[in-house]
Amino acid sequence: MIGRLNHVAIAVPDLEAAAKQYRDTLGAHVGAPQEEPDHGVTVIFIDLPNTKIELLCPLGDDSPIAGFLAKNPSGGIHHICYEVEDILAARDRLKQQGARVLGNGEPKIGAHGKPVLFLHPKDFNGCLVELEQL
Amino acid sequence: MIGRLNHVAIAVPDLEAAAKQYRDTLGAHVGAPQEEPDHGVTVIFIDLPNTKIELLCPLGDDSPIAGFLAKNPSGGIHHICYEVEDILAARDRLKQQGARVLGNGEPKIGAHGKPVLFLHPKDFNGCLVELEQL
Repeated sequence: MIGRLNHVAIAVPDLEAAAKQYRDTLGAHVGAPQEEPDHGVTVIFIDLPNTKIELLCPLGDDSPIAGFLAKNPSGGIHHICYEVEDILAARDRLKQQGARVLGNGEPKIGAHGKPVLFLHPKDFNGCLVELEQL
Repeated sequence: MIGRLNHVAIAVPDLEAAAKQYRDTLGAHVGAPQEEPDHGVTVIFIDLPNTKIELLCPLGDDSPIAGFLAKNPSGGIHHICYEVEDILAARDRLKQQGARVLGNGEPKIGAHGKPVLFLHPKDFNGCLVELEQL
């Protein structure tokens, strides 16, 4: 069912410092910051040859990653995202197997403009898993 | 400098349960467990079309992931691994930029039989970063 690893998302307290580090210290191709007010984050994409890293920094007062950064002030890996062909079929299969889908169980439009769902970390070895339909 | 994302490593308390979940619930291609006594872990590789997930479970009394699982009993993302062409050149560049290399600073032979280094999580947004020379 799951396909490519679409991205690894890393929550960071200082987006500029993290971008500089990936660009200058690690020598990666780092994009420009993109504000995503609907998602409460500012995002920078780092293009690797086979996948992407997403640096996430809180935007606004009600950011979904504010709590994570309060617990992990230096930042940390926030979630991993797997691609699926059919997100509703994926959701139904997951629910049938007893996995919990976060929120109301309906896909939302994610930061890439594609339908996404998040799965409960307790059901997946402590990892927050995002599914994105291509 | 950094190339492909070689793998995302997830520490899990129950390797069999995690493998079943990735195989049956997420429908991924899950390999057989491999004991790596030199590294204190048993590993299962999950092949995705563009990269790998490594499920890690402690092996023996002195596993390097025992402490992580004590803090994160459900498991969690343990590290991410970027490929580099020349690990000594990468190390020297990183040290020049002020990043700390774990251990004695010399590459070790990792679980894939290739030279690896780990970088200090405090220098990389709370992420433990492994570099692997191909």
